[in-house]
Formats: sequence, C-alpha cells, structure tokens
Amino acid sequence: MTITAGSLVTELRRALGEKVRVHESETLLYRYDAIATGPAPLAVVLPETAADVALTMRLCVAHGCPVVPRGAASGLSGGSVPVGPCVTIASNRMRGVVIDAPNLRAVVQPGVVTDDLDALARAEGLTYAPDPASSRQSTLGGNVAENAGGPRCLKRGVTADAVLGLQVVLADGSILSLNRDDGGLDLAALFIGSEGTLGFVTEITVRLTPPPTFTRTVQAFFSSLDDAGRAVALITARGLTPAKLEVMDEVSLWAVDQFLHLGFPEGGKALLLSDCDGDDRATVDAEAQAVLKAFQDAGATACSLAADAAEAALLWRARKNVSPALGNVRANRVNEDIVVPRSKLPAVMREIHALAASSPFPVAVFGHAGDGNLHPNILFDRAHDDVALVEALAHEIARIAVRAGGVLSGEHGIGLTKRGFMIEVTPPATLAAYRRLKDALDPNGLLNPGKLLPERSR
Amino acid sequence: MTITAGSLVTELRRALGEKVRVHESETLLYRYDAIATGPAPLAVVLPETAADVALTMRLCVAHGCPVVPRGAASGLSGGSVPVGPCVTIASNRMRGVVIDAPNLRAVVQPGVVTDDLDALARAEGLTYAPDPASSRQSTLGGNVAENAGGPRCLKRGVTADAVLGLQVVLADGSILSLNRDDGGLDLAALFIGSEGTLGFVTEITVRLTPPPTFTRTVQAFFSSLDDAGRAVALITARGLTPAKLEVMDEVSLWAVDQFLHLGFPEGGKALLLSDCDGDDRATVDAEAQAVLKAFQDAGATACSLAADAAEAALLWRARKNVSPALGNVRANRVNEDIVVPRSKLPAVMREIHALAASSPFPVAVFGHAGDGNLHPNILFDRAHDDVALVEALAHEIARIAVRAGGVLSGEHGIGLTKRGFMIEVTPPATLAAYRRLKDALDPNGLLNPGKLLPERSR
Repeated sequence: MTITAGSLVTELRRALGEKVRVHESETLLYRYDAIATGPAPLAVVLPETAADVALTMRLCVAHGCPVVPRGAASGLSGGSVPVGPCVTIASNRMRGVVIDAPNLRAVVQPGVVTDDLDALARAEGLTYAPDPASSRQSTLGGNVAENAGGPRCLKRGVTADAVLGLQVVLADGSILSLNRDDGGLDLAALFIGSEGTLGFVTEITVRLTPPPTFTRTVQAFFSSLDDAGRAVALITARGLTPAKLEVMDEVSLWAVDQFLHLGFPEGGKALLLSDCDGDDRATVDAEAQAVLKAFQDAGATACSLAADAAEAALLWRARKNVSPALGNVRANRVNEDIVVPRSKLPAVMREIHALAASSPFPVAVFGHAGDGNLHPNILFDRAHDDVALVEALAHEIARIAVRAGGVLSGEHGIGLTKRGFMIEVTPPATLAAYRRLKDALDPNGLLNPGKLLPERSR
Repeated sequence: MTITAGSLVTELRRALGEKVRVHESETLLYRYDAIATGPAPLAVVLPETAADVALTMRLCVAHGCPVVPRGAASGLSGGSVPVGPCVTIASNRMRGVVIDAPNLRAVVQPGVVTDDLDALARAEGLTYAPDPASSRQSTLGGNVAENAGGPRCLKRGVTADAVLGLQVVLADGSILSLNRDDGGLDLAALFIGSEGTLGFVTEITVRLTPPPTFTRTVQAFFSSLDDAGRAVALITARGLTPAKLEVMDEVSLWAVDQFLHLGFPEGGKALLLSDCDGDDRATVDAEAQAVLKAFQDAGATACSLAADAAEAALLWRARKNVSPALGNVRANRVNEDIVVPRSKLPAVMREIHALAASSPFPVAVFGHAGDGNLHPNILFDRAHDDVALVEALAHEIARIAVRAGGVLSGEHGIGLTKRGFMIEVTPPATLAAYRRLKDALDPNGLLNPGKLLPERSR
C-alpha cells in the first residue's frame, strides 16, 4: 500500500481545518484500546457532522488510505486499534442527544457516553437498558460497533435490541438513513456488531424503557462450580427471569479477596449474584425468594438476600471489581468472551478448569451466567511468560466453547484479537457470504482493515 | 427472458423425482396469496431438505429461471405470488420441529405452522411469542420472510426478536449457517423480512419463552378516535406495558356489528382492547386496573374488565372478526399496514378519516395501537369501482403515515402491493445500498423478482 500521506493530510486540513489533528502528541493517543496497541494513525479526524465524515471517507478512499473508527477505545478486542497507516475518525465531538420521551426513544450521536444517555433518559423517567461494564467511558457508537452487552441484558436485551435506526456513512461517502421498521431490508442490523468494517455510524435512534421500581439482590456461594451451574439451569427450567445473573469462579473470588479483603466464606468455590426487578414490590420479593430457593436446591453453602440498596451495592462490589483485581494478580491477561448453551455451563466450566490446571497460567472464569456468556481470563506477564503459550491456551478455551455448541464472542467483538479464530469456526460458505457483503459496501477494503473478517487466502 | 422451460423441468424431475409437480391441477394452486393473484409457475418444487433446495436453485440459475418461495400463502402483500414464468419452491413438506426446552429454543423447518410450533412448545411448558392473525395457517418460513408481528408483539417482540439463527440457501446453491450471536456479521437479520429476495430459509432456530400465568382483558368504548388515541398516549406516558393494545374505529365496529350482532353501545366511535399478563395475579390485576384508569382518564364512555377467560374471549371476538366482517361489507379491500409514532396516532387517524370522508370508499381503521401499527382498509368492489381511485387513496394514506414520521409496512411486508411506494419513501442512497446487497447475494436477480425492491430505473 502506498498512501500519499502528505497530500491526503493537506486535503483533509483544507476541507476540515482544525478538526484534523496530525501532531504526534495527539496521534499517539489513538494507538490503543483497552487490550491492544498498534501504530499511530497518520491523522485523526474529529468530525462534528455526517457531512464531515462523508468528506473524510471520500478523501481517504481517493488516496487508498484505510479508515479506523473510534469511540472511547474502551473495547477489549482491538477493534479501534490501527494495524498500519490509516486515518482515525474519532467520535469525540459528536455528543448530541435528543430525548423523545412520549415515543420512548432518543436520537443520539455516536460519541455520547452510555451512562450520560442513561442519566438524561432517567431525568425524563426512562432508562437506556444495555449496561456494558465500561458504561462510564464507552460510547453509543462503540456499543453499536461491538453490539455491547452487560448484566442487565439478560432480561432487557443487548445493544441490537435497543437500536431502532441508524444513520451510516459508507466508504463512498453516501449517507444512509436506516429505520429498522420501515419494511425494507434490515440493513441497520448488518452494521450493528460489524466493528466499523462496513461504515461509520453517525446517528443512532435507540429505544428507552421505563426503569423498574423495585430491585432485590440475591447472592450465594457454592462448594463447586458444578453446583453453581446447576443453579443456573434450575432458574431457567423454573421459568424465572431475573434481571441479572452473574457468576464468579474460585480464581476470581480469590483475586477479589486479595484486592478488597471482603472476607468471603471458607470453601466458597463459586459465587452467583442475581438481581430481580419489577414494578410491584411483592412480585419482585417473590421472584427473589424463588431465585434464593433455586440456589439452595442446587446446594448453595451460604446465601444472602440484600435488605436494601446499600447492602445490594456491597454484594455487587465483588463482581464489579473482578477486572482491577485480576490486573493486580498479573500485569497482562487475555480476556475471552465465549457464549455456551446454558445447559452446558457446568461441563464447559469444568473443562476450562481442567485445561487451566495443566497449564502454567491462572485462569479466572466469571461472566453473565444467565446468558451463558463467560469471560475466562488467562493471567500472565508479558515480561516473563511465553505469549505463544498463552495464545494457544486461549485458542483451546475457544475450541471448548465451539465444541459445546457455543460461540467465540458474546459482547466484546472479534476485532484483532479473535480474528484468527474466525476462519476456524465459520463455515466457508458463510465466510464467503460475509465477504460478498463487505465487498458490496466497501469494495476497496479500506474500512477498519484487519478486524473481524479473517485475512483472505491469496 | 427466455427460459428453456421443458429442459429445466426435465432436469428438475430427473434430480428430484416426484418432489417436482408440473400438472396444471397443482401449479394453478400456487398462483395466489391472501391478497393477489399472478400466473401459474412452470413447476412447483416440494423440497424435503436444504440439499433439495440447493439443487433446485442451481438448476434454476443455470436456466435463468426466477424462483418464488412460498409458505402457506396467507400473506397480505403478494410476496409469494409469481409475476412471470418461474419455479415455486414451497415448504409444504418441511415440517420438522425439535424443541430444546432446557435452552429455551426450538429448531424448526420453514413449513411448520405457527400455531403448531406454539402447541408443541406449550406441551413443554413454553410458548412461541409472535402471534400473526394468520397463525392457524402461516408458516415459520413465511413469518421470517415478512418479519410477521401480531397483538402479542407489543410486549414480546416480532419475529425478528424471536429468531436466534437461520440456515439459508443462496441463489448459487451455497448453504449458510447463521447464528445471530456468533460475533460475526448479523447476516441472518438481513434475511428476516427480505421476502425471499435474498435466499430460501431452510431452518430456523427460535427463542421460546415461559407463558404468563395470568391474563386480564380490558375493553373501553370512546366517543371519538381522539379520546382513544389519548388513552394510548397516556398508557405509554405512564410506563404501562400491557401485553396487547388494539384499536378499532367506527367503521370497523359497524362492520363487526353487522356481521355478528354483538350489540355495541350507542355512540361508540372507537374501541380499545388490552390484555395485561404476568406471573403474579395481584400485579396483573393492578396493571389491568391502571389500564382501565387510563381509559377512563382519557374519557372512555363504557369500560369492561373481563372476569374470566370466557368473558375475555367474548371481548376479543369483535377484534378477531374484523377481517371477515369487512369482507362482508364489500367484495374487495386494500389492506394498508402503516406504523406511526404513538404520539401521532390521534392526528393520523383524524387525517385518514377526513380523507376517507371526501372519497367514495368506506375506510375502516383498526390495528395494533400500542405499537402505532394501523391497518386502514379501503373497502371497494372490483366489479363496479375504479381501482385506480382506490390505489390513489391508498397512496395518500401511506403519505399521511410517512409525513407523520411513520413507515409503510408494519408486519405484512412490501411484496408486490406496496413496491411502488418504496421508491417514494426510501432515500436514493439507502435504495442504492439495498441494491448492492441484493446484487452481492443474487447477482442474476432471480430470487422473487418484482417484490420488495422497486424496479431499477433503466
């Protein structure tokens, strides 16, 4: 690839002025996300409108220059990390929000932070349901790109379920207005989770929902992961739909206890944490009791039902601090993001633990048990450990999920880090169809190259 | 188009034997759906497997012969009606169902009837949520093709929300396995609602949900459509989420009364009918009372709260019989399927009535008020009335919806009958993107030609 970088940057600056940033002191800040690092982009464009984005696209395509989209870069699969010379389009300045409370929706620009949207919705008596762990930083554009999930998604759906329409700029600079319910093709769905490989999202119409009036939190420790897995299966089998149902294994518990000294009970090898919510206190109480009963029937060794919001916050403290706690154990980690059928949870967790026991690395398993979405984290230290061994172990864990009828990525995306697995798990005909669509919308292959879709065989 | 029909049929019969039907006594049965009629297909193929479908696709493409997919043909937009020489692939024999209760899902073939799936799910303590009015006839394949809705979809989502994965055969005979949660592109979403223009769906994995334990039905008459519209807005504004919320206007009420002699109260110009459901009797009762209160606050002139399932069935009888009742008024009708923002319902219904008052045709308006999905039905008689006038009126009604920020098709699809409007309401850039995807997956344009996408300008 030969990009006449000087000329491209000159044209971008002429067209967009100070919205184009080229000094190293700025471009170096756009090398990384929360998991990976690449080269600095040639320039960073900070558009304010869809027209700014369209202009950038057209100039980049004319110069054969790749375009990398970027929100808050809180991603965990390298989706917004450059893999070579490129222009990064960052949504920092696109922060407009219009709340349309009577129609239970909002129209937002891609740079709006998830929690900010939720706060604005709450001021109108509504809420934005998807709650990725990074909601204090992550942007709506990034959430759409990765189809972000979160604990609350068990009951209320992931980002794709909240998106009613998108405005998208394609590589050729055309601006699409996509209403998912207009009876035409559901083109918007194709962009959700496409990690910026098909277009840049410039506006998002989302569904808002009334928040539940009452919430109860239930926690239980188990003497084995098997028992915890059985509890999840019981909850599903009994038709209960808690708002959240999260799991932590022994390694995660140990790491959090080292970090926060919460004093977990002896012999606790697994923890389940669940919220039940709704608009009627008696119903929510009854559901929380039913979840508690399922925990007990599956052999829980210690259970707690939070009396109030303060107690609930204490119970959630362990789960919310898994990531920093693991960072305290080893400097680096590979964060897997598998999804398996809920009935396979115990067997899959057992297999992962057996694999970890025969490897030199600690593996912590936690995640959204109710959805079957687990985050096995391989802990290592890049300075001392053999990264190839870590990657081989990650690959084996992904294979366990796929063998159990599961998938590679629940909510973090494929990005850079899981791209190598895609070719292994995607049937050739399906991969060929992905490519046909990619070629139809981005014929020069300039949108976020090196992400999601595996390298073409040459 | 010149199709060497004899040779194609010979090859199909050699490959698929008695699965290929060519006698007029059979092919004539495949000319129509519930709204339109076209020419008979050259042959009807009744595949039993995805391999049968792939083989048919490859032979048809080799002969340049269009392929029309067909489920139960209960559609209301001409989606499965031939527009010229073609081979119809009908799902009559693809009726396999596997219920996977522990994982709350089922894998079904496209010819399975909606109600049959629901009955099999109920035998395992679960239910299939989407409930199109045609659920006794319509098939899962047809539901996917049109992204079918229904009254229950207000609370539980449309077909797209229930589909977890698809197996699809493309025009080139390749067989795609699409899991919507696998982290790749959500290609399955593109096929849902694509009306058979992109591929033939051979297997559908759907989400099953526990049925609600309790249901209460509330009915109210209003002295104006405005009051009924205000009641819908109040219900939304108060954060209530009834399971169903249906509206009937004066013309629909009159037609049903003529048909069934139910003895509606004098001066009732609009009816709202709502179900509240859930797993706790007190909560469901409280929600039904809150809906009743909203009806009263908006000025309802007569309200009923059904005491039991038998009374509820009586209340639902009027709404369920709108279609046959309208057929009793005039021999023919154009069934519109607009969706408007809920806050615009009163204004839109008022505009439609004003338009109808200045036209020679009765227009009945009814539908899924809670979703903003209305079915204005223009009643006429093909033997005496000027069909061009009817179509012009339909077009004006569609324009009212679009001007109010609404769309053309809520749940019936675009098909043949609304295809002409598509070019008017879809921005050129979006239409061009639709075409790029169509060309990528069906380069010869042989899959269900003449449906959904407007004619290319030449």
